[in-house]
Amino acid sequence: MSDSRTLALSIALIEQASVTPDDAECQPMMCDILEPLGFECETMQFEEVKNLWARKGTEGPLVCFAGHTDVVPTGPESNWQHPPFDATIKDGMLYGRGAADMKGSIAAFLAATERFVKNHPDHKGSIAYLITSDEEGPAKNGTRKVIKTLEERNEKIDMCIVGEPSSTKRCGDVIKNGRRGSLGAVMKVKGKQGHVAYPHLAKNPIHLAAPALAELAQEEWDQGNDFFPATSFQISNIQGGTGATNVIPGVVEIVFNFRFSTELTADDLKYRTQAILDKHGLDYEIEWNLSGEPFLTDHGSLVDAAVEAIKHVTDIETELSTAGGTSDGRFIAPTGAQVVELGPINATIHQVNEHVSIHDLEQLSLVYERILENLLTDKNA
Amino acid sequence: MSDSRTLALSIALIEQASVTPDDAECQPMMCDILEPLGFECETMQFEEVKNLWARKGTEGPLVCFAGHTDVVPTGPESNWQHPPFDATIKDGMLYGRGAADMKGSIAAFLAATERFVKNHPDHKGSIAYLITSDEEGPAKNGTRKVIKTLEERNEKIDMCIVGEPSSTKRCGDVIKNGRRGSLGAVMKVKGKQGHVAYPHLAKNPIHLAAPALAELAQEEWDQGNDFFPATSFQISNIQGGTGATNVIPGVVEIVFNFRFSTELTADDLKYRTQAILDKHGLDYEIEWNLSGEPFLTDHGSLVDAAVEAIKHVTDIETELSTAGGTSDGRFIAPTGAQVVELGPINATIHQVNEHVSIHDLEQLSLVYERILENLLTDKNA
Repeated sequence: MSDSRTLALSIALIEQASVTPDDAECQPMMCDILEPLGFECETMQFEEVKNLWARKGTEGPLVCFAGHTDVVPTGPESNWQHPPFDATIKDGMLYGRGAADMKGSIAAFLAATERFVKNHPDHKGSIAYLITSDEEGPAKNGTRKVIKTLEERNEKIDMCIVGEPSSTKRCGDVIKNGRRGSLGAVMKVKGKQGHVAYPHLAKNPIHLAAPALAELAQEEWDQGNDFFPATSFQISNIQGGTGATNVIPGVVEIVFNFRFSTELTADDLKYRTQAILDKHGLDYEIEWNLSGEPFLTDHGSLVDAAVEAIKHVTDIETELSTAGGTSDGRFIAPTGAQVVELGPINATIHQVNEHVSIHDLEQLSLVYERILENLLTDKNA
Repeated sequence: MSDSRTLALSIALIEQASVTPDDAECQPMMCDILEPLGFECETMQFEEVKNLWARKGTEGPLVCFAGHTDVVPTGPESNWQHPPFDATIKDGMLYGRGAADMKGSIAAFLAATERFVKNHPDHKGSIAYLITSDEEGPAKNGTRKVIKTLEERNEKIDMCIVGEPSSTKRCGDVIKNGRRGSLGAVMKVKGKQGHVAYPHLAKNPIHLAAPALAELAQEEWDQGNDFFPATSFQISNIQGGTGATNVIPGVVEIVFNFRFSTELTADDLKYRTQAILDKHGLDYEIEWNLSGEPFLTDHGSLVDAAVEAIKHVTDIETELSTAGGTSDGRFIAPTGAQVVELGPINATIHQVNEHVSIHDLEQLSLVYERILENLLTDKNA
């Protein structure tokens, strides 16, 4: 079942130095492969971000592969054992920025699509690709805007496979069937500046904030549920003080973030946070930023298809998870689409010497192919 | 009892732009006044700091006037109504950097010394001046080193009047007969850096520190005593975080300070602080800096002389206080000297448009003169 097509495509994509939000030549390369298969390729440029919507077929169900061609920066290239855009092969591993996140997945799905269309030229439904060059960045002009465009013209994705690297120890051991929401905040707690030797003339905002922060840090926001870990609160930054050792500052700034489950809404969290701050009598300002709602695809045809395909190809009983960070799935799920994330092992993403197992990518391509068969043919029924 | 000598000397000193640690020509100017009165002037230069030890007489008791010729920076001169080194007179006020802190006091004591020596050429004991150009700065090469030199040659100050501006609403309403100690610390609380979405793989040092800081902030260290307000703990600075909103930092740094009374030692405070941190299970490092021990001059001949002189000249029943910041008295008191701080109103020190009442300075000069009479003659017995 050896497949050098996935490897060849991975190498070609990695060699494109597409540091976010640059696509380099990745999407045109994808179009060159997809158009001969019967896909119509539509480029959607929003400011500096290049997006691709490619579709074959006009009927439902529409099965979409979503992902990104942009990669995070490399840091100093001298820190890498092999140059990050060389796509070096060593001991069965493919090295390069984006190898695992997520050019290997794109290559695997392209190769799977080629084989699937060749073997099932009359498959039912439609296949699409939703590709952006801005997943690693602010995510303002990428998938979010493509979905908006599709919704405006009533083009509905039924099932979406996001190729982000979901696996932990073995390729296919974990798939994500949802993601937690992310609610951020920047808070200023106010006091009154003064001299350390005259504390009765000042109000120390650090002293005032500390018990409230302690309470927020140990609050049980919810207990999660069958699909989500418990909602988590984390302070990422705190800064107060003038630098002088004899001045009580007038303000302390705290930056924090919730990763929340479907047990709570963002408004619940805002309400409860402010209730705790008010209970401690704090004088504060908060600027909230909801960067994503939680989403969940409960068991359904897509989840079943993915679970079966992984079991068939790798013999792994995959685990459904909603842990970890977020993905562009958060823009797709609110349309009503079923969304599952399935990709290679994520252990080295965003680090130096990012790499992926070539055998894993080839297995992944077979899994993707089987998912298409499960959803768009009666072959495995 | 009008005295334009104090005013003339104040103006001459203020016109010297002696921003710390620069003395400009202040100390030479003082020597020109003191030498004709019989003082032997000894300059002690330690690195960039100029100090003056001037003494008249060889016998005890030795009554010393201590103070500084250096001033804090002015900030942008355009913020001042009158240029800070012009020594402008307006509505009975003398404006200028150092007017209140503390060139007016130096001028007042010089004028008092002149009158005293003229009226009591055979006074008992000795009079001395201990003047530095580094009180407002790190205080490393100033009074501290002069005292060390005097101790090494067994030259003992019996009573010391520090001319720092001690008064609050009326000149002479408050004198300081002691100061709290100052113990500073820089603490790093350690955790483990990680991704906000993977809190179980990280340890948030801000979360860990918050309850300990809350406890430190509300701890009652002591209740003070008849002479000292309760020991005070204040956090001046806190900083943790990488700037990124999705990273849990690995460390948080907290800077704090104790102003402590004679009820506790610095070692007591270190012990109790570390006990609280240990109780909360923190992994931390602390760098302690003891910048001064508390000191106190209980009732004695110097305090009595000052209280009587203020009452006699101004009719004010002065208040003995140890509140507020610190002074170079902390270097003098450990030698066994009685130390009292007496100067004009401190409301405008270190600010723009610093000023002092000319009438107050003239009253102050009379008070200083009476103190010398009380201590070194039988005139007022």
